Amino acid sequence: MRAPRIDCLQYANWSEKIFRQMNAGAVDAVHVTIAYHENFREMTHNIAAWNRHFRRYRDLIVQGFSAADVEAAQQQKRTAIFYGLQTPAPIEDDIGLVEICHRLGVRFMQLTYNNQSLLAGGCYEPDDSGVSRFGRDVIAEMNRVGMVVDMSHSGERSTLQAIECSERPIAITHANPKWWHDCARNQTDTVIRALTESGGMLGFSLYAHHLNGGSHCGVDDFCQMVADAVSRYGCEQLGIGSDLCQDQPDEIVKWMRNGRWRVEEEDDAPAVFPQQPSWFEDNLGFDNIAAGLKKVGLNETEIAAIMGGNWLRFYRDSFAPQV
Amino acid sequence: MRAPRIDCLQYANWSEKIFRQMNAGAVDAVHVTIAYHENFREMTHNIAAWNRHFRRYRDLIVQGFSAADVEAAQQQKRTAIFYGLQTPAPIEDDIGLVEICHRLGVRFMQLTYNNQSLLAGGCYEPDDSGVSRFGRDVIAEMNRVGMVVDMSHSGERSTLQAIECSERPIAITHANPKWWHDCARNQTDTVIRALTESGGMLGFSLYAHHLNGGSHCGVDDFCQMVADAVSRYGCEQLGIGSDLCQDQPDEIVKWMRNGRWRVEEEDDAPAVFPQQPSWFEDNLGFDNIAAGLKKVGLNETEIAAIMGGNWLRFYRDSFAPQV
Repeated sequence: MRAPRIDCLQYANWSEKIFRQMNAGAVDAVHVTIAYHENFREMTHNIAAWNRHFRRYRDLIVQGFSAADVEAAQQQKRTAIFYGLQTPAPIEDDIGLVEICHRLGVRFMQLTYNNQSLLAGGCYEPDDSGVSRFGRDVIAEMNRVGMVVDMSHSGERSTLQAIECSERPIAITHANPKWWHDCARNQTDTVIRALTESGGMLGFSLYAHHLNGGSHCGVDDFCQMVADAVSRYGCEQLGIGSDLCQDQPDEIVKWMRNGRWRVEEEDDAPAVFPQQPSWFEDNLGFDNIAAGLKKVGLNETEIAAIMGGNWLRFYRDSFAPQV
Repeated sequence: MRAPRIDCLQYANWSEKIFRQMNAGAVDAVHVTIAYHENFREMTHNIAAWNRHFRRYRDLIVQGFSAADVEAAQQQKRTAIFYGLQTPAPIEDDIGLVEICHRLGVRFMQLTYNNQSLLAGGCYEPDDSGVSRFGRDVIAEMNRVGMVVDMSHSGERSTLQAIECSERPIAITHANPKWWHDCARNQTDTVIRALTESGGMLGFSLYAHHLNGGSHCGVDDFCQMVADAVSRYGCEQLGIGSDLCQDQPDEIVKWMRNGRWRVEEEDDAPAVFPQQPSWFEDNLGFDNIAAGLKKVGLNETEIAAIMGGNWLRFYRDSFAPQV
């Protein structure tokens, strides 16, 4: 088996073209966002849409539930699709929905998406509440059933508390270090150390707003940042979570950002997707990253770990129920 | 492996006592009703309640998804619980929910419950519409994913049409022949012949309203009816679906019968559960049936087939997706 290639966050406007690019890019598994602000019943519409994709493009994609499904997909030259939620809206106020979502294939759930949720504080809130009472019980339930706590869009206080109170390692599936590019969504050295030292995973983002220089960020700059992170945190807890939003129309940004919580006119920044860097416009871009990591001096073992081996190990340890 | 014992319909007021009786009665699998008039989101509450049962009583019960789970449960001295829906209300008007319900473990769905539904005509309707346009598409989808069409509470015309248009054998999980006891819920010889000749299964009911003599029906009378059915239809397509509603309070009959479709005051018969016959009050009663079947002259092979072997074969053929 060649080293697996895993992207631990995409939210594209899914199409045959994109699934073919996943295959052509040798991407063995992708964690895809299936809901933002949808409630549980609304989320089922998105699952039904994915079921149609799995049926129609069965030669290209297959739903993934376990690490073994990644290895099977690689052998079949298909891409395993793992579900994730970017807000906890689909579980509503009902802890019983955690296990039901897990049964449906949800393997990652963000406790917050920018805003305060029932569970924790978001990365754009002026005051981060930390993990709430309901949040602590949901983390315990996620630990029990095998759903990964994802703090990519949470505040620092909530993130540190989630790392502390989760019995199983958590993830920040798509973000970069603040020491490379300072923005609300990128992560402090304190968080990344606590995350990686507790067995958690950081997935490096390729979304322009998270990149030094934005859309004009060079692949060498990005890869040097990865190499610097390896020096700081070791190689074992790092991977890719590209945040690729390929082919999405701009109205999707409004939904992601505003949901139903804000009167649309009050939006405070242009609701448009930024241009991707030229070396990562789609799933064919992973070769550029692998080549770039080699150029900045990482060895084959390190590159294989970052391009997917670490995520595969994490999937193996994270997705089954606690015994 | 001893011959499996399977009850293909119960709707009890679930408790540790009942699960212990299932074990003591050597019942290896039970098809349990998880919803009547609940919509999809309401059904998830019932699934969450079952998840709590599976967690709390893990030494007694386990969720079943496939025939192999029945065999595993028997080896572990547990009872495998398979979900079923008595009305199609949980799939609402959304065919995408069929596959999602299957993923959650639903293995049987009645197209109607007494009344006309979006899918077909019910056994109490003055005019049976037959299978509707939506009904035909839902049957095809159930065939595809591996969910059994159950026509226990449907009209004769709808039932014959469902047998005709389903690519996979269907079931009448809990009813008796009209030639033994004539009531709206029992089945005509025409239906039972069409059912069994097409590979479908009939589960004999122990609900007093379906029994000759009601609560006073004798076990010999019941078992002679089974033996007569074996003479008419052969032994291979018959099993038990007791319709046991143990320990349910009477208000549950109102919910089953009236749901939200009728002003309660208009109910036209006493909403009470009838007394079970003395020889089948709980899961310990299966021994009485097995002994009774021997007394009326069935051989060991026939008895083993009717007490569970036939259902196990049917489960093996019915629950996996079409390839």
